[in-house]
Amino acid sequence: MADKKSIRIAYISENSTNECWQFMSELAAEDIEATVFFYDKDKQASVTNETIGNKLREQPENKANVIYIATDTLDEALRDADFVILSLSVGTLDEIINDIYLPERYGIVQATAESAGPGGVIRALRTIPACVEVAEAVKKNCPDAWVINTGNPMNISLMALREGYPEIKAFGSTNETFAAAELVAEFVSKDSNLPRVHRKDIKTNLLGINGFCWFDEVTYQGQDVMPIYRKFNENFAANGFEYHTGEFKSNPKVSGNRVKFDMFLRYGVIAAADDRHIAEHCPPWYISTQKTAGNWKFGTLNANYLKRLRVENQAHSKKLMNGDSTLKIAPGKSDLINQMKALMGLKNVITNVDMVNDGQVANLPIGCIVQTNALFSNNSIKPVLSGKLPDEVLALTLRHTSNQTTIMRAAKEKDLDIAFNAFLNDPLMTLNLDEATTLYTEMLTGIRSHLVYYLNN
Amino acid sequence: MADKKSIRIAYISENSTNECWQFMSELAAEDIEATVFFYDKDKQASVTNETIGNKLREQPENKANVIYIATDTLDEALRDADFVILSLSVGTLDEIINDIYLPERYGIVQATAESAGPGGVIRALRTIPACVEVAEAVKKNCPDAWVINTGNPMNISLMALREGYPEIKAFGSTNETFAAAELVAEFVSKDSNLPRVHRKDIKTNLLGINGFCWFDEVTYQGQDVMPIYRKFNENFAANGFEYHTGEFKSNPKVSGNRVKFDMFLRYGVIAAADDRHIAEHCPPWYISTQKTAGNWKFGTLNANYLKRLRVENQAHSKKLMNGDSTLKIAPGKSDLINQMKALMGLKNVITNVDMVNDGQVANLPIGCIVQTNALFSNNSIKPVLSGKLPDEVLALTLRHTSNQTTIMRAAKEKDLDIAFNAFLNDPLMTLNLDEATTLYTEMLTGIRSHLVYYLNN
Amino acid sequence: MADKKSIRIAYISENSTNECWQFMSELAAEDIEATVFFYDKDKQASVTNETIGNKLREQPENKANVIYIATDTLDEALRDADFVILSLSVGTLDEIINDIYLPERYGIVQATAESAGPGGVIRALRTIPACVEVAEAVKKNCPDAWVINTGNPMNISLMALREGYPEIKAFGSTNETFAAAELVAEFVSKDSNLPRVHRKDIKTNLLGINGFCWFDEVTYQGQDVMPIYRKFNENFAANGFEYHTGEFKSNPKVSGNRVKFDMFLRYGVIAAADDRHIAEHCPPWYISTQKTAGNWKFGTLNANYLKRLRVENQAHSKKLMNGDSTLKIAPGKSDLINQMKALMGLKNVITNVDMVNDGQVANLPIGCIVQTNALFSNNSIKPVLSGKLPDEVLALTLRHTSNQTTIMRAAKEKDLDIAFNAFLNDPLMTLNLDEATTLYTEMLTGIRSHLVYYLNN
Amino acid sequence: MADKKSIRIAYISENSTNECWQFMSELAAEDIEATVFFYDKDKQASVTNETIGNKLREQPENKANVIYIATDTLDEALRDADFVILSLSVGTLDEIINDIYLPERYGIVQATAESAGPGGVIRALRTIPACVEVAEAVKKNCPDAWVINTGNPMNISLMALREGYPEIKAFGSTNETFAAAELVAEFVSKDSNLPRVHRKDIKTNLLGINGFCWFDEVTYQGQDVMPIYRKFNENFAANGFEYHTGEFKSNPKVSGNRVKFDMFLRYGVIAAADDRHIAEHCPPWYISTQKTAGNWKFGTLNANYLKRLRVENQAHSKKLMNGDSTLKIAPGKSDLINQMKALMGLKNVITNVDMVNDGQVANLPIGCIVQTNALFSNNSIKPVLSGKLPDEVLALTLRHTSNQTTIMRAAKEKDLDIAFNAFLNDPLMTLNLDEATTLYTEMLTGIRSHLVYYLNN
Repeated sequence: MADKKSIRIAYISENSTNECWQFMSELAAEDIEATVFFYDKDKQASVTNETIGNKLREQPENKANVIYIATDTLDEALRDADFVILSLSVGTLDEIINDIYLPERYGIVQATAESAGPGGVIRALRTIPACVEVAEAVKKNCPDAWVINTGNPMNISLMALREGYPEIKAFGSTNETFAAAELVAEFVSKDSNLPRVHRKDIKTNLLGINGFCWFDEVTYQGQDVMPIYRKFNENFAANGFEYHTGEFKSNPKVSGNRVKFDMFLRYGVIAAADDRHIAEHCPPWYISTQKTAGNWKFGTLNANYLKRLRVENQAHSKKLMNGDSTLKIAPGKSDLINQMKALMGLKNVITNVDMVNDGQVANLPIGCIVQTNALFSNNSIKPVLSGKLPDEVLALTLRHTSNQTTIMRAAKEKDLDIAFNAFLNDPLMTLNLDEATTLYTEMLTGIRSHLVYYLNN
Repeated sequence: MADKKSIRIAYISENSTNECWQFMSELAAEDIEATVFFYDKDKQASVTNETIGNKLREQPENKANVIYIATDTLDEALRDADFVILSLSVGTLDEIINDIYLPERYGIVQATAESAGPGGVIRALRTIPACVEVAEAVKKNCPDAWVINTGNPMNISLMALREGYPEIKAFGSTNETFAAAELVAEFVSKDSNLPRVHRKDIKTNLLGINGFCWFDEVTYQGQDVMPIYRKFNENFAANGFEYHTGEFKSNPKVSGNRVKFDMFLRYGVIAAADDRHIAEHCPPWYISTQKTAGNWKFGTLNANYLKRLRVENQAHSKKLMNGDSTLKIAPGKSDLINQMKALMGLKNVITNVDMVNDGQVANLPIGCIVQTNALFSNNSIKPVLSGKLPDEVLALTLRHTSNQTTIMRAAKEKDLDIAFNAFLNDPLMTLNLDEATTLYTEMLTGIRSHLVYYLNN
Repeated sequence: MADKKSIRIAYISENSTNECWQFMSELAAEDIEATVFFYDKDKQASVTNETIGNKLREQPENKANVIYIATDTLDEALRDADFVILSLSVGTLDEIINDIYLPERYGIVQATAESAGPGGVIRALRTIPACVEVAEAVKKNCPDAWVINTGNPMNISLMALREGYPEIKAFGSTNETFAAAELVAEFVSKDSNLPRVHRKDIKTNLLGINGFCWFDEVTYQGQDVMPIYRKFNENFAANGFEYHTGEFKSNPKVSGNRVKFDMFLRYGVIAAADDRHIAEHCPPWYISTQKTAGNWKFGTLNANYLKRLRVENQAHSKKLMNGDSTLKIAPGKSDLINQMKALMGLKNVITNVDMVNDGQVANLPIGCIVQTNALFSNNSIKPVLSGKLPDEVLALTLRHTSNQTTIMRAAKEKDLDIAFNAFLNDPLMTLNLDEATTLYTEMLTGIRSHLVYYLNN
Repeated sequence: MADKKSIRIAYISENSTNECWQFMSELAAEDIEATVFFYDKDKQASVTNETIGNKLREQPENKANVIYIATDTLDEALRDADFVILSLSVGTLDEIINDIYLPERYGIVQATAESAGPGGVIRALRTIPACVEVAEAVKKNCPDAWVINTGNPMNISLMALREGYPEIKAFGSTNETFAAAELVAEFVSKDSNLPRVHRKDIKTNLLGINGFCWFDEVTYQGQDVMPIYRKFNENFAANGFEYHTGEFKSNPKVSGNRVKFDMFLRYGVIAAADDRHIAEHCPPWYISTQKTAGNWKFGTLNANYLKRLRVENQAHSKKLMNGDSTLKIAPGKSDLINQMKALMGLKNVITNVDMVNDGQVANLPIGCIVQTNALFSNNSIKPVLSGKLPDEVLALTLRHTSNQTTIMRAAKEKDLDIAFNAFLNDPLMTLNLDEATTLYTEMLTGIRSHLVYYLNN
C-alpha cells in the first residue's frame, strides 16, 4: 500500500453526521492523497458529505489531496477500497428512542442503550444484518481492505463482520479511552504543579472490552502514577470531579467521574470508558433510576437531546453546504487517521484497538472481541500482551462476552428465542420472565422491519 | 480402614435435627461396627441424639453395632476419627429468618437463602469461621479422616474447610439430584407403561455446582431417554408436574417443576437440583415477587414454616427420647452410608459428589467446587469426566463460582468490604449501590456475633 | 442392548490367531447368547476359527450360547453388529520382519516395532488404510456399534478409525497393565507374608498412552503401597526381578523389570506397560544395541521367534480343528469380556481403556489418545479423572503424541513426506538426515502395496 | 529515569572481550550521559576495559559523556544501577573446550555447546550459580534496575536470575535474528532488482526460544515476501547460499544456510537463528559427524578457533590500551542501546527480546523463556502477541523448554541427578544409559569447582 500514489477509502454511513465531518477535517490536515467514496442508504446524506468534503480543498489550511464522491451502491463504494470505514447507527430516531423508553416504562433505566441493556440487545439485533451485508460486499469488492468500525455496538459489529466474511481484516477504532487518560493527566499535573500534562504522555496498560475497559497501569515518563490517581480519587470520590460543574445534566456525554472513582476504590483499576458506559454494563447499582444516575453525576441519553442534536446538525449542515460555515481543519483528535497512516506504512503507532482476543487478555475467552493496546505498522496490527482482569471485573465482563456470543448464535441460527437469553441475562434486566418476555416482544415489534434477516432459515 | 474392627465417626452438628435421625436410622440398617461421637455447641442436642441413637440397638431390625457418645469438645469428638460428618446450619432461627426477611423488605425475594441471594452471602460469612475451626481441629486430631459436609452453603463450606486445612480430604454429600432423577424415571415409566422405573436405574451425566447442577445425558438401560423427557416436558411446561397438586403452597421443599421445564426448553439440559434452588441462582426471572414464585409453582422458605418445623421436631424428639416413638430403620435413602462403605473398601460406588474441580467440568475454573459423578472406592474418590456446561448455563454458573471466590478472598483478607462485592454481584441483587450498602450493613449487624473472625487482622 | 436376547459381534482379524482363541474361550465361560461373525482377508483363517469356535459348545464347561459364522465380506460381518472387535496385525511376516531388521542394519535396535521406533511409523502407515476401511464400513453397517481395537499400533488405529468415521464409538482394550499390577501385588505379598495378593486387588491410578503408561498411585485395601514398591524396587534395581531366571532370553515378551525399576527411581512413577514397550518409547537409553537390551534384561522381537510362533500356532490350530486338542474354557483373564458385559448393562466395570483425551490426563493434549481408568456402564464409557504426568515423563510422552498427530496429518493430506517428519522425530532415530531419508525410502518400498491409500489425492 | 541527568550502568562480565568493546563503541555514538561500573572476577579485565573505554572520549566522533570505572566488588558495581548488563561466559577456556570435546569422544558432535547438547547442559549447570549470585546482589543494591542478559545459555540465565530474585526486571538482548532477516532482505533485493533492501525494513513475526526461533511472517513495505523467500529457498536448497564461498570452514559463526532452507521446506517457517544453533537444537540430523555438518555447510566451534580468538583479542587489547588502535565508534549494530534508550523513555522500540512467556507464544508453556518481538517504552516492555509454533516445531521446542525446567529444578533442589534427566533427554544424546552416565560424570568432574552450589542442601 505504501507505494500507492493514492488510496481509496470507502466511507459507509447510516444516521451518522458529526463523525464524518470530524473524519474529513482530520484528513484535510494530513499530507495524504485519497479518493473517498460515500455510501449511505440515504443518498442525500452522501451527497451532502460529498459537497462539504470537496469544499475543504479550498480552505488554506488544507494539506490533503482528497476527492469525495457520493455513490449509489455499496458495491460501487467498496470497489478496490484500501480502507473501509463504517459509521453505522442502525435505526431511525424513533427506534433509537424506543431502545431507551420501552425498557424505562418497565423500570429499567439505561444511559446509552448502545451496547448493553435491553436496548443494547435490540440494537445489536438490528445492526447484525447491516454488518453482514457490508462484510459480504467487502469480500466481493475489496477482500484485502482494512475495515474499520467506529460505531456502536462495537463488539457485535465486529463479530457480525466476521460472520459475513470470516477472513475480514476488521478492527474497531474509538476514542473512548481518551477522557480517562486525560483525567489521569489532569491529576498528574495537579499533583506536580506541572503545566498541563498531555493525555498522550500518559502511558497505560489497557484491557477489557469496548464500553467496559480498564487501565491497570498508568505511567508518566516511566514512573507509576497510580498512587497519584489514588490520592485524587479518594479526595473526589464523594463529590466527583467535573471540568464544568453540573454539565452532565444537559450533556449526557459528560460525567463527574463518580462511577469511575467508586469502581477504582472497589477493584483497584481505572475505568477507561465513560461513566455512562461503565454504569450501563453493571447491574443497576448506579442507574436503578434517573435519580440514582443523577446522584452518581452522569447523564442519560434522552429523546430531547437526540432531537435537539439532529436539528443542530441539520442547521450546521446547511451552513456548511452554502459556505456560511466551514469545518475546522485540525490534526488527529482521534486515532483513526494515525491508525490508517500506520497501516499504510508511514509510521508505527501504539494505540487502543478493538479486535479478536488471541490471548492479549489472558483471562477472557479466546475469540471474543477485546480492547487493548496494539502495534499498528505497515499492513499489520499486533496486539500487545495485556495481562488479566481482576477477578470481579472479569466476572462482570464475562456476562457481556457471553451475551454477545449468545446474540451471535441467535444470528447464525436465525432464532430470536436464543437472543432472548441474552436479553434475560443482561445485568440491567431485573424483570421476571413474563415481564421480560412481554418487553422483548414489544421491542422486537418496534424494529420488525430489521428482522427479515432472522426469518431466512 | 477396611480391616478395622470398628470405625470412629465424629458427627458435628449445629441446629440440625432431622439429618442426624436419618443418618442414625440408615446406619442401623447396615452391618457396621462403629462408635459415633457427637459434638454440638448445644450440648443438650448431643445428649438427645446420644439417647435416641443408643435406643436403636434395641429395635429388632437393627443390624449395626453402633455406640453413640455425646462429647463436650470438638477435639474430643474428632480424636482419631475415620469419618467426620458435618451437619452445620450456622445461625439462630432469628438469624436465618433475617436472611430471608431483611432482603424481602427491599423487594428481594429468596426461596431458601442458603447458598445464593443476599441471604446466601450472609450465611456464607457466618459459616466460614465455623468450618475453618472444624478444619483446624481435624488437622490436629484426625488429619487423614474423610470429612463429609452435608449442609448448605455447600461450596463455601468446602472452600472454608480447605482454607482451614488445605490437605483436608473433604467432600460434599447431598441428595439434591435425586428428585430430578426420579422425575426422569417417572416419565420413562409413564412413556413405556412399565411398572415404576426406579431412580437408581436412570443413569445420568451430572455437571454443575451444588444448587445449580444439570443432567446432560439420561439413559435407561443404556438407551437415551432425553427424547422421552422432552416430550413430557413439553406437555407439562405450562402447568407443571406435581405429585400432589398444590403441595408446594405449604411445603417449600416441593415444586411443580415448572422452573426445571422452562430451563430445559431454554438450554436443553435438565436441572438436577430443586426448582427453588435453581430459581434462586438465577436473576429474579422466577422469583421477582412471592406471586411470581407462586406462578412458577414453587414455595419459598418462611418463618412460619421454620417455626412449625422446630416445634414438630422438638415434639418428635421428646417422643423418641421417652420411647413413645421410634426411628424407622431403613437402608440408604441417602447416599451418605454408601459413600462411607465405599471409602471403607466394602464396595465401589458411583454417585454425585461436591468436590474441587480438577477438570471434571471442563469449562468451569480449576479449583472451584463442582458437583459431578465420581467413583468412590477404598479410601479414594475419583471424579468422572463430565464434559462442558452449555454456554449460557456456564455464564449463569460463573457468576456464583466467581462470587464464592470473592467471599473466600474476603475471609482470607478479613475484609468484609470485599464480601460486599459478592453481595452486589448476586443475580438477585436488583438494588442500587446505596440501598445495597444499607441492606448489607443491616444484615451484618444482625449477625455481628459471628463477625469476630473478620476482625482478627 | 440390555434387553436383547442375543447380541451380534463382528470379529475382524488380520494375521491374528491366539487372540481369537483367547476371546472364544473366555466368551464360552460366560452366560451370554451371541452370534459372532468372522471376517479376515484370509478366508481360511475365518473358517478355521468358525470350526474351532463352534466346537466349544460341545465342551461341558461351556456356559455360553454362541454361534460362530465365517463371512466373505466386511459388510456382511458388520451388518447390525452390537460390537466390533478388531484384531489387526497389518502386514505379512516379511513386512513385520522388515520393520525390525531394516532399521537394525542402520544400528537402530527395536524391541517390538509395533507402536514406536522407525518400524512403528511404518507399521502405522500400513495400518491406517485398514482402519479407515473398517470405520467407513462400520458407519454404513452398524453406526452405533461399540468398536473395540485390541491390536497395535493402538493409538494410530483409534485415530484412524475416527478419521474414517468421526462419530465412531471406538476404544482400545488391552491387558498391557496387568503384569505391572501383578508385580505390585507380588511385592505386597512378599512384604506382608500374606498369601498371594491378587492383581485385581491392587487399585491404581493409571495415566499415559498405550505402550507408555504409568501408575502414580497404588493402593491395597485402601492403603498406599508405594512405599513397599519402592523398597523392593531398590532391592531389585541392580539385578532385576524375574519370575523365571533368564526367561527373557527366549521369550521376548517377558523381562526382568529393570527398565521399570530404573524409570521408577528416576521419575517416581511405576511403568505400567512392559519393559520392552517402555524402552522402545525412549531414546536408545536401554536399547542402543542388542547387548544393551540384554543387560537391561528384556528380549527383543526377532524373526526366529515369529516364525516359530507361526509354526506352533499352525500345529495347534490343526489339532483344535481335528479334535486332538481343545481350548481351555476359563473366565476373564482379559478385560475384554468384562467391558462388553458392562456396555451391555450387566454390571459396572472400572478398568483401563485407550480413548480420546477429553481432559482425563490433564497435561496431555486434548484430542490425543490416552490410557487411563474409566467407568464402563450400560452403553457408556466415562474416563476417570487421572491427573498429570510428571514433567519429564510428560516430555517423553509428548514426543509420541506429537508424532502420532503428524502421522495422521500425513494420512489426511496423503503426503508421505509429512510422515517422514515423525520418522525423523522418533526417539530411537539417531541417524542423520541423509541416512534417515535412505532408510525411510527402503522401508516404504518394502510396504509399497499398502501405500495406494496415500496416492489418492 | 527519563529526567535523570546521568544514568548508572553496571557491566558484569566474565571471559568476555569483544562484547564489551562493541557496547562501548556503540554507546559512544549516542548522546548519552552515563557512568559505567565494571565488575569482572578477573579484575585486570575490568581495568583494561576501563582504560579502553575512557579513551573513547578523546575520539572526535564520540558523542557521549560516559565515564568508565573498574570496581572491586559486585556490590560496588551494582549500587543504585539503572541498568545491569550481563556478559557472562562462565568457565575457563579448558572447560569450554571440554564441553565440546568430551561428548565428541563418545560420538556426539556439537556446533557451539552453548545452550543445547550435553555441553549445553554442563554449561547451564556452571552458569546458574553465577546468575543467582548476581540476582541476589541486584535485589540488595538496585532492585528496580533493568537487568539485560547478553550471553548464552540465554534461557537458563534468565531463569536463574529469577530464581535468585523473583521480581527481577530481567530480559535477554541478542542479535541472533539479524542474519536471518538480512537473508530475507537479500532475497527481496535480488527479486526486485532493488538496491540493497535493509534488514530493518523487513518486518517479521518472531516466535520461539533463544537459539531456536522462527519467522512465520515476513513483510516488506506491508507486502508478504514469504513467496519470494520460498522461491530463492528452493533455488538454493541443494547448495546453500553463502556470502563468501566456503567461509564456514574457517569461521564457525557463518553458514551456507542449508539447515535453514531444509527446515523451511519441511515446516514452512524461517529459522531466525543461525544454522549452527538450529542444528544443535535438533536430533543429530545435521550434525551426526563433523562431515555431516560440513555437508550442511556450517562450521562447529573448536579449540583452535577459540585459542586463536583469544590471542587475537589479547593482541588487539594491547593495541587499544597503548593507543596503537582505536575502537570504531558507530551507532547501533546491536539493539542493546536502542532498548536501553526506549526504557529510558527516549523513544519507542519494537524489537526481539527473550523474556518470560505470559502467552505471547500461545502454545509454549506459560512461564518458560521465549523470544518474540516486544514493545520497549519508558520503563516498560510489553511482548507483542506472536501466535503459535507449527506442530512439529513445537514438539522440537518443547524438548528444550522441558529440559530447561528440569535443569532449574535440579538447581532448586540441589540435585545433580535431576539434571542428568535433562542430559539424557537432549536431542543430541544418542548414547545408552551407561555411556551417558559415564560421560555425565566425566563432564561434571571437569567443572567440579562450579558445583559447590549444588552441595548446599
